[in-house]
Amino acid sequence: MSKFWSNTTKSLVPYVPGEQPKDKKYIKLNTNESPYPPSPKVLEAIKNAANEDLRLYPDPEFDMLRDTVAKYYGLEKDEVYAGNGSDELLALAFQAFFNPGEKILFPDITYSFYPVYCQLYNIDYETISLDEEFNVPVNDLFGENGGIVISNPKAPTAKYMDISEIKAIVEYNKDRVVIIDEAYIDFGGISAVKLIKDYPNLLVIQTLSKSRCLAGLRLGLALGSKELIDGIIRVKNSFNSYTIDRLALAGAVEAIRDEEYFKETVRKIVTTREWVTTDLRGMGFNVLPSKANFIFISHNEMKAEEIFNLLKENGILVRYFKKPRIDNYLRVSIGTDSEMKTFIKTLEKLNIKNR
Amino acid sequence: MSKFWSNTTKSLVPYVPGEQPKDKKYIKLNTNESPYPPSPKVLEAIKNAANEDLRLYPDPEFDMLRDTVAKYYGLEKDEVYAGNGSDELLALAFQAFFNPGEKILFPDITYSFYPVYCQLYNIDYETISLDEEFNVPVNDLFGENGGIVISNPKAPTAKYMDISEIKAIVEYNKDRVVIIDEAYIDFGGISAVKLIKDYPNLLVIQTLSKSRCLAGLRLGLALGSKELIDGIIRVKNSFNSYTIDRLALAGAVEAIRDEEYFKETVRKIVTTREWVTTDLRGMGFNVLPSKANFIFISHNEMKAEEIFNLLKENGILVRYFKKPRIDNYLRVSIGTDSEMKTFIKTLEKLNIKNR
Repeated sequence: MSKFWSNTTKSLVPYVPGEQPKDKKYIKLNTNESPYPPSPKVLEAIKNAANEDLRLYPDPEFDMLRDTVAKYYGLEKDEVYAGNGSDELLALAFQAFFNPGEKILFPDITYSFYPVYCQLYNIDYETISLDEEFNVPVNDLFGENGGIVISNPKAPTAKYMDISEIKAIVEYNKDRVVIIDEAYIDFGGISAVKLIKDYPNLLVIQTLSKSRCLAGLRLGLALGSKELIDGIIRVKNSFNSYTIDRLALAGAVEAIRDEEYFKETVRKIVTTREWVTTDLRGMGFNVLPSKANFIFISHNEMKAEEIFNLLKENGILVRYFKKPRIDNYLRVSIGTDSEMKTFIKTLEKLNIKNR
Repeated sequence: MSKFWSNTTKSLVPYVPGEQPKDKKYIKLNTNESPYPPSPKVLEAIKNAANEDLRLYPDPEFDMLRDTVAKYYGLEKDEVYAGNGSDELLALAFQAFFNPGEKILFPDITYSFYPVYCQLYNIDYETISLDEEFNVPVNDLFGENGGIVISNPKAPTAKYMDISEIKAIVEYNKDRVVIIDEAYIDFGGISAVKLIKDYPNLLVIQTLSKSRCLAGLRLGLALGSKELIDGIIRVKNSFNSYTIDRLALAGAVEAIRDEEYFKETVRKIVTTREWVTTDLRGMGFNVLPSKANFIFISHNEMKAEEIFNLLKENGILVRYFKKPRIDNYLRVSIGTDSEMKTFIKTLEKLNIKNR
């Protein structure tokens, strides 16, 4: 603690992202990155944008990217916005739509950044307890609240909510903003984007980090009614006029345009996820059903933390959350077939059942 | 106004950056960009970084960039931080060090983003009236306050404060954080960075947008004691884990390393600034002394707004602020010699004196 820190800063417990170790080469299954490179067209577009125009500010309104995304989703340009990663857009949205003193709701087991935003922006919240199978008890979202945030598929469990449930939530909460955080939606789920025209209170957040293989580019999307997008723009323009650089804008446009590459990459990851799930279940693992690019697993015979440490010793990083209810689970990102074969073989070597 | 906006969002008056018009090709002297391209080594580094590793998150702690900057300035790595443009770092610093109810001080004529941050983060402020020549009355900064923000050279006047004055301010205000915003310091001023080892309350903010010709890359620097940098890190990690993408990190490292290109570019801009100043004074303009990459000018015979409009009609964009005390001034970025010759010729054509 420093005497120079503001009172808020003193009280913060910042979010801790997954390890990015530099000590040696790991098989990285801990931060839900794509195991596949971005589309060659994206890399080409970035190289072309690495020119003398970098001396000039980027377009602060991201017009070309917003046009491209709007066309992709059948929305208007003013129903689309972009940010320096979806985390930035979530932070802007928390400021734009939630008020101190009006408790917002999110599940007790969810993306652990949500309570951190609440600390930083002085927003009160209440958590909704997930049931034994980590499902959202939808009825609990039909009470008084100052807004709702749901990730779908949910981090870190990979559990997926049907679009009919999302619809019921935005329908009931017509006077509050409902944020659906769809970082992982492309791996088998149905996006709530199709509800935007009917529900001006619905904000959908997506990212190019996962299904577009661009975690290193920092590009998030916000999709919603013009009045919600305008709210985000007001906050953004009171914080940083130029949040996305020229290179990221150029790459992102191509990432959206190259649908073929996108679909093929997603297909490969889903195929791998399915055989890995089957293999793990055969080894006695409990694998929650996943529509994401990761799986959430546990085993009765060995503690998750122990498996985590043994995997790390063997050069494989997965994510372990030392938190109530999920402290016997591991979140495992889906890698290439070759990486996942090594993962399975390493688990077999650990000989979990007979220890 | 939307019923969905938070109370803060409803009250915001966002910052408005200089125009980035798309209707036709202008000589752009309105946003203080460099007229020169970035170093070829920067472009090369970015092209090399446009590779398959973009699928992976960037280093959230910016280690290599911080090492490079620390070496450049003779600081430790933990006395250096980076952000998605200096605006982002200013926003983080306002949150990290200033408290609601404790009025911070900044000049009445300054970078117009400071009061916007105060609105967004609910920070109270008081403005210090600059004297008739737009100088800071330093004695006015020796009273009770919750922190101080000074840009040096000052936006938008280009006026420069001597390092001895900066030292007096940080010396007197030892228990409060003093932010010196040095976006334009490389064009002839002496940086307050040399005071950092003696004053743990001093935070210096810089940018690669101006003197490193990289406005399109979005890269700002924060330089200060470890405890101040740690405060910024706490807020940053409660807002967005990965604020700088892999391409910007790669380019920024080379921009700092290529000192020769940097010095040559700065030298050219300063040389141009000096002859333009002489020419303008010969035409009856009042040109404030500048140690920045822009000049602040006025003329007794014609209103600044009128000159602004006439220049725009003639394909030249400069910046006009319709604000008390400076509404008869224009801020003119220094372009290439060729651009500035056109600027001068266009002014001659307007025949200001004889209208």
